[in-house]
Amino acid sequence: MKWSQFFIVTAKETPADAVVPSHQLMLRAGLIRQVVAGAYTYLPLGLRTLRKIEAIVREEMNRAGAIEVSMPAMHPIELWEQTGRVAAMGDVLLRLHGRGDDWRSRTVLGPTHEEIITEHARTYINSYKQLPVTFYQIQTKFRGEARPKSGVLRTREFLMKDAYSFHTSKHGPGGLDDGYQAMYDAYCRIFARCGLPYIAVEADSGPIGGDASHEFMVETDAGEDFLVKSEDGSYAANLERAEVAPVEDGKDGRNAPLTVVPTPGHTTIEQVSAFLRCTPARMIKTIIYVADGQPLIALVRGDHNVNEPKLKRVAGVLNLEPADPALIKNLTEADVGYAGPVGLSNVRIIADQAVTVMHDAITGANRTDHHLTGVNPGRDFEIKESADIREAVPGDRAKNGAPLTFRKCIEVGHVFKLGTKYSDALGATFLDEKGASHPMIMGCYGIGVNRILAAAIEASHDANGIIWPASIAPFRVIICSLDTREADVMSTSEKLHDELESRGVDVLWDDRDQRPGVKFKDADLIGIPVRITVGKKGLAEGVVEVTTRKDGQTQRLGVAGAGVELLRLLQGR
Amino acid sequence: MKWSQFFIVTAKETPADAVVPSHQLMLRAGLIRQVVAGAYTYLPLGLRTLRKIEAIVREEMNRAGAIEVSMPAMHPIELWEQTGRVAAMGDVLLRLHGRGDDWRSRTVLGPTHEEIITEHARTYINSYKQLPVTFYQIQTKFRGEARPKSGVLRTREFLMKDAYSFHTSKHGPGGLDDGYQAMYDAYCRIFARCGLPYIAVEADSGPIGGDASHEFMVETDAGEDFLVKSEDGSYAANLERAEVAPVEDGKDGRNAPLTVVPTPGHTTIEQVSAFLRCTPARMIKTIIYVADGQPLIALVRGDHNVNEPKLKRVAGVLNLEPADPALIKNLTEADVGYAGPVGLSNVRIIADQAVTVMHDAITGANRTDHHLTGVNPGRDFEIKESADIREAVPGDRAKNGAPLTFRKCIEVGHVFKLGTKYSDALGATFLDEKGASHPMIMGCYGIGVNRILAAAIEASHDANGIIWPASIAPFRVIICSLDTREADVMSTSEKLHDELESRGVDVLWDDRDQRPGVKFKDADLIGIPVRITVGKKGLAEGVVEVTTRKDGQTQRLGVAGAGVELLRLLQGR
Repeated sequence: MKWSQFFIVTAKETPADAVVPSHQLMLRAGLIRQVVAGAYTYLPLGLRTLRKIEAIVREEMNRAGAIEVSMPAMHPIELWEQTGRVAAMGDVLLRLHGRGDDWRSRTVLGPTHEEIITEHARTYINSYKQLPVTFYQIQTKFRGEARPKSGVLRTREFLMKDAYSFHTSKHGPGGLDDGYQAMYDAYCRIFARCGLPYIAVEADSGPIGGDASHEFMVETDAGEDFLVKSEDGSYAANLERAEVAPVEDGKDGRNAPLTVVPTPGHTTIEQVSAFLRCTPARMIKTIIYVADGQPLIALVRGDHNVNEPKLKRVAGVLNLEPADPALIKNLTEADVGYAGPVGLSNVRIIADQAVTVMHDAITGANRTDHHLTGVNPGRDFEIKESADIREAVPGDRAKNGAPLTFRKCIEVGHVFKLGTKYSDALGATFLDEKGASHPMIMGCYGIGVNRILAAAIEASHDANGIIWPASIAPFRVIICSLDTREADVMSTSEKLHDELESRGVDVLWDDRDQRPGVKFKDADLIGIPVRITVGKKGLAEGVVEVTTRKDGQTQRLGVAGAGVELLRLLQGR
Repeated sequence: MKWSQFFIVTAKETPADAVVPSHQLMLRAGLIRQVVAGAYTYLPLGLRTLRKIEAIVREEMNRAGAIEVSMPAMHPIELWEQTGRVAAMGDVLLRLHGRGDDWRSRTVLGPTHEEIITEHARTYINSYKQLPVTFYQIQTKFRGEARPKSGVLRTREFLMKDAYSFHTSKHGPGGLDDGYQAMYDAYCRIFARCGLPYIAVEADSGPIGGDASHEFMVETDAGEDFLVKSEDGSYAANLERAEVAPVEDGKDGRNAPLTVVPTPGHTTIEQVSAFLRCTPARMIKTIIYVADGQPLIALVRGDHNVNEPKLKRVAGVLNLEPADPALIKNLTEADVGYAGPVGLSNVRIIADQAVTVMHDAITGANRTDHHLTGVNPGRDFEIKESADIREAVPGDRAKNGAPLTFRKCIEVGHVFKLGTKYSDALGATFLDEKGASHPMIMGCYGIGVNRILAAAIEASHDANGIIWPASIAPFRVIICSLDTREADVMSTSEKLHDELESRGVDVLWDDRDQRPGVKFKDADLIGIPVRITVGKKGLAEGVVEVTTRKDGQTQRLGVAGAGVELLRLLQGR
């Protein structure tokens, strides 16, 4: 492809509104253009990389035996109502603007496709003989993301590979475990082939629901997820999921007497600890929720935060919402900010494991403008349920005792064991060998195709621009012709270009009448892995130069055999 | 691909709600499943054909020098407001449901992408040196179609190839004419490669706007457009555009005196002609419009209908709306139903050319409950403007005198010369050699990718099912193994399957343990061009059978060289 016949728009300046490197470089290299917040056009160069990623995903899905379909973005809201996800998704689920109760008002745009594929399975699958089966698609998703940011990392419209598997059993041959593993393995192959330094970790299933899940993460400061890893490498999980070892019993308490102290107008951990001159770690934070319609109190140390996904799992509830002030007043007989576990016997309380070893703690007195000091769990209130319900923090250790580290990361893939949540809700059943009916057992598996692109840039760039992994580079080779008015330069360049292209190598020929500096800067910015420089001076010596983008290493090749030699170099990589 | 590892769901029964053959067969062959009115899932078999069509479209676009991009579905409504198309599109332009004036309320889903690509051109193109350039995408469109019908022929969500070209001139080298012709030629290659019996005709530009356009049509009763062709083959056009020769002067009038006759309560052509015992052809129909804000009266013969696209072009107006009763009363001093040209001198009147030769006609008297008889154009009212402003009807002749025929058809592609409508509205300008600024001159070019699939079925099917053109068949060959418990049958089938697949032939191996009748019926229904039958009986004679779907012709091939022989047959087609 000649540069002059393609459409590449590079920019020297870093756009003011782009913060993370992948966003800056995707704009500067002319890969994308924002059309509206959270929705991007892929310009020709960006689209080439996107399509290469898509092709790798498709190949590996096919290799894993998944069958491609293509579902529409428009869904009837009825299916989402049947699975209860209109409420669960909230503003994320976008609807069309209609009049009254017309078809538009009943149409939503799919943020994911569990409902639709389960309807299809219900329609077409009725026998165990048709199972297991895995479907996938590479299709555009729409989500009402409140704050799109970081370029294509968090958007409202994006390309997703979503797959769904259907099984007769969880653990048998051809069961969910097998299907899940096949997808897990395919994901590893996909991310490896895309050149991503990824890590697979335990994750929370979130609003998708289900038994178990893993996320595929790429570490980068541009990410918004946190990866928690043990220093010894034996454990890694999303912060939402990460388990921590119990903290040791401080035994620093003096078993002080339980005392009511006035704390007028002081309601937050910060205010009370400042007022009573203690560290937040001495306080017991008392959070009141409504969990599946019932009040639920969570206790964590004042310097810790409740991890709601963990709390939901421990409590065995689906929905968790903050209690409103009226309920808090009703339960505690006090205004918001003065709740505490002492004396609250008629409500379910779950204490974080770190709370169980606290001594002489401070907490709300269930009386407006008052707190209690000298609170000792066991002595002053009973802990009926305790578990790991808080977020890990620096200083925490993994269960095996190894210190935990925290890294920002991007989620590029997610696999879930769904179980029968959707097949139950939508009545997707099959008949077994004996004619008995069961709900199908499902898994679902997602990859953010656009995110792979951004994650690859985050993981591989330098001050001069992108350094594409060869597998997803928009072009594998760029030929920079210097002195474009020299016939010899152009004919040598063209010959090399044609030779490489005929051998299936994606090659971009920079045939512009531009200064070498401009060409080299552009080649570096757009990140083509291998640059061939053809210039008058080199040709006089019978050579062209080959430069590797990654390390800047240059070698000279004799003009005569340059094409063959280059093919050998490319294959060797 | 083994049938048992793929996912094909055929049905014997014709679905009750499917009327046109392509819809019936797409459902019966398991190509699609409706998710919600006007939005379909492509099941594995249907998706294979869709992807093959996509690949042909992409190849020919690339061959024509067009550069691929991918624009999002979400657009900011501001751009559509700037081109005036929020009003022009009406309900076709779908919006998201928001709260107040939030981002959702300002987001529309693109039914086409002129606004977006013009914004991009404005951003990235500033010099004549960057022109001409043609961009294209294959992307999902959303339209608020009031009545989706006929399967994938008229939908609310569909895959479109849309291309946009930008030029410095209309007629010079690299100008719009050249770009338009390149796309026109590419379209011819695309439809020919897809095996469609297409015809390219003059068309009206409709709400897209612009100077000239052609539609690519496939004749079929399932269509909703009308193709008007002259019997001598010299002329063809969309009904919206089709020009007709003037009708001959009947000279059957007797120059009767102009007479006011009471027609109490009779307002329509039907009522009045019945009441006055004349044919509708004796009446002058008087239609009052508001054209770009001004009243405009169109006169056509009582048995003719105004062709509004023609009228717009003749009148040189952009918007044409029916006048409301208040305006009609104001202009004619009569209730609706009694308007006529006699005595209306202060309003622009355009008469169809067939009206100019009428004699002793009947029309409204501009007086409630009264009509005029003995109306003679020229004598009783002046015709200042006359032109061809009506729809062609059976019996009409082309301008060269040849009789016109009418056929229903599907539009599969449309090319437009846009001119500067969008570049003017959005300020997309370039600097010429002398540094002067001009709006870019544009063309736009659309193909309904899904419609090609349905049109191919409409054009090629029989009572047993689809007969796919080889180029877009989901599989090129189907191997039907009879007697699947015979090791010899299965090993011969597998060998053939592997041999063909390794040579790049898409082959489906029906390895199911089913009766021959079921397999043959399914193979015919899903329309695979070539069937190879491998059975115990044939193998005993050392042969396999090759049957062509199109004509049912069968020939026997020796088992030994069957693969090679078959490849030769396939290449010969």
